[in-house]
Amino acid sequence: MIRAGIVVTGTEVITGRISDSNGPWVSERLAELGVEVAHIIVVADRPDDLEAALRFLADEGMDLIVTTGGLGPTADDLTAEVVARFAGRELVLDEEMLAKIAEILSNFARRLKLDEAALLDSNRKQAMVPEGATALDPVGTAPGLVVPAGERIVIVLPGPPRELQPMWRVALSTEPVQEVLARATPLHGYTLRMFGVPESEIAKSLREIEADDGVDLGAVEITTCLRRGEIEIDIRFRDEAAAVAERVRDGLAGRHRKETFSLDGETVDDQVAALLRGHRLGLAESYSGGLLAARITNLPGSSAYMAGSIVAYSNEAKAELLGVDAALIESKGAVSPEVAEAMAIGAIDRFGADVAVSITGIAGPDGGSEEKPVGYVCFNARLADGTAIARDPVIPGSRFDIRERSALVGMHLLRTLLSGSDAPM
Amino acid sequence: MIRAGIVVTGTEVITGRISDSNGPWVSERLAELGVEVAHIIVVADRPDDLEAALRFLADEGMDLIVTTGGLGPTADDLTAEVVARFAGRELVLDEEMLAKIAEILSNFARRLKLDEAALLDSNRKQAMVPEGATALDPVGTAPGLVVPAGERIVIVLPGPPRELQPMWRVALSTEPVQEVLARATPLHGYTLRMFGVPESEIAKSLREIEADDGVDLGAVEITTCLRRGEIEIDIRFRDEAAAVAERVRDGLAGRHRKETFSLDGETVDDQVAALLRGHRLGLAESYSGGLLAARITNLPGSSAYMAGSIVAYSNEAKAELLGVDAALIESKGAVSPEVAEAMAIGAIDRFGADVAVSITGIAGPDGGSEEKPVGYVCFNARLADGTAIARDPVIPGSRFDIRERSALVGMHLLRTLLSGSDAPM
Repeated sequence: MIRAGIVVTGTEVITGRISDSNGPWVSERLAELGVEVAHIIVVADRPDDLEAALRFLADEGMDLIVTTGGLGPTADDLTAEVVARFAGRELVLDEEMLAKIAEILSNFARRLKLDEAALLDSNRKQAMVPEGATALDPVGTAPGLVVPAGERIVIVLPGPPRELQPMWRVALSTEPVQEVLARATPLHGYTLRMFGVPESEIAKSLREIEADDGVDLGAVEITTCLRRGEIEIDIRFRDEAAAVAERVRDGLAGRHRKETFSLDGETVDDQVAALLRGHRLGLAESYSGGLLAARITNLPGSSAYMAGSIVAYSNEAKAELLGVDAALIESKGAVSPEVAEAMAIGAIDRFGADVAVSITGIAGPDGGSEEKPVGYVCFNARLADGTAIARDPVIPGSRFDIRERSALVGMHLLRTLLSGSDAPM
Repeated sequence: MIRAGIVVTGTEVITGRISDSNGPWVSERLAELGVEVAHIIVVADRPDDLEAALRFLADEGMDLIVTTGGLGPTADDLTAEVVARFAGRELVLDEEMLAKIAEILSNFARRLKLDEAALLDSNRKQAMVPEGATALDPVGTAPGLVVPAGERIVIVLPGPPRELQPMWRVALSTEPVQEVLARATPLHGYTLRMFGVPESEIAKSLREIEADDGVDLGAVEITTCLRRGEIEIDIRFRDEAAAVAERVRDGLAGRHRKETFSLDGETVDDQVAALLRGHRLGLAESYSGGLLAARITNLPGSSAYMAGSIVAYSNEAKAELLGVDAALIESKGAVSPEVAEAMAIGAIDRFGADVAVSITGIAGPDGGSEEKPVGYVCFNARLADGTAIARDPVIPGSRFDIRERSALVGMHLLRTLLSGSDAPM
């Protein structure tokens, strides 16, 4: 098993000012190549901490170490220097690289009318390469490095994703990295998505699959996670375990037929977008305040089926813009299955839509009651012909959670309504 | 100097399927307390890798180790077990905790009609506590832990941010953690927010403040970052540097008066919410698809001033629901300052509002032209008396960026209109 560690450098990352996307990106690329990523370590711009992280990964027997960031011209950019020390190699000036950087910078300087000499001076350190290492041409101004360090290879990449990602492909093509990857066996995977089932039920099903179906779960890597209200189950396997992985997948999908909406990682957004083609959608939202509309219009091409949404936050708006009978609001309350139904009918009418979803609820923190607590939400998803699915769950969590979850439930009700499958809730 | 390491567990994090917000969040909280965070380590759900990370942080002399995640009921949730082994403490069943979990779960089971016994069975492991550790009451179903391990304290927290964040405060109040924190000297901070100024201008101003005003920037820690379209400048300092920090803050605010909207970390959302009190707001959104409405209604209490939003995605909807003259759309185009104005007027009219904002633009990827490229967006923020601010910038970035940024611009136009301050753009 080939294993790797990733070291993400940058004080702005460790302080949370910038959220790192490089670690997970490199990690996913490595997983696809069959390399197991054991650790992603974020360190501030302190050389001792960076070197300690490198030594730790070496001690843990990593075959590959990837660093990101710290290749800039400023004083706190120290990665090349620290990696050279870690690998026991002298830093030497790479004249060819210096020339390449000079050319990039002179264009840059001309465009921005900067002092070229000063610029070059501060970028000279970027042309310093550890002896025996392979320098990778800059995408921005910082070259990357592939540095042999004892039994292992260190790939040194710049921090900006638009520089890191193209350079990653170049790094993979170098001989030292190719040699390591040749020893890895690629990993395959299934991603199941479910809605409306608790994680504990999945744990139970996995125990059954092992005990009753006699499947050896140890042969595959299974991760279950709750992701924005949905359960995502990832089954990773190598060729020899393909049959086991299939049995796990089918065992889970069979036990949670109604809740399983994706066997291949496809999201509910993708599915709803496909199902909506040829339809005309109108929405009526109250307390979800446009979240469902925002989610649906986030998909490119949504203008083909999305007519719009009436966010009727006030009762007057519900009456005037959606034609909900004020007396109904008075008698049943703005948050009631009856008003949700009237809102959906209003959306179909006002947008000339053939499918509509309405959401009205109590997001809190105030406005809850004994009978209708904070989190009580009424949904109505319907077709112009009157076919409808109505739900009125109590959604747990914060105001933010309740609103987010409502948009999700709206998506799943749309999926269920348009695909004619059983409602998972 | 008190130092800490954070260990984020979860295969779903290391594979990049979930992006971790806990590491940076805990890191920021620790920084506020004057604790220096040396490493954030992400590990998959493999006990050996987790234990190795803990040992590394111990060897590096961390006073505090915080772990997040891996406290669930499933077999791959191993944090408590591994931390117990690391600390050399037996796991024992905490009957009191088991009772608490049982109560939470039986409510849960009743609501979702689940097999309570199975639920309890798979959650029993969550009540196992290392001997001599302090168990922290569950926010969800997973208790947290404060575990003394030799010279250091390990704080074990659950993965879901909505559980982790409240539990963090409880963990801080425990005696072992208090003892460690007593040795740290707190960092204070100012957070300035600006809108409509490039990062390079801030760098320039900081150089001036050092050169012209003779302020020693080395005495404080300044981080500048572009955060969702706004510039966030964080000035961190210890008591002795309070005067310097103040001069830096005032020097920046003075040089960017129009662009600085917050000296104390207050967000534009907070400010708009305060400014809207006593008003009645109506929105008219096209391609932003409800994002501005969602952002405004995300604030508790928004129902006091938010009438609603008409998300008029189709041209018919713009005409029928907002009363925009179809001929105007025909002659000027759906994305034009004229249509934006008509939409805002329509929103004031339809919602009986005294303030309105309209957004119409081209999010792409398709629909752009020479004259109106992708990212061209027209805004109109106006009061019922006709006072208005109109803007039609070309917003760079992806479809997602353009939509997000549009909601942000909408917020700043509202702030500017209602506060009577100069528009920063």
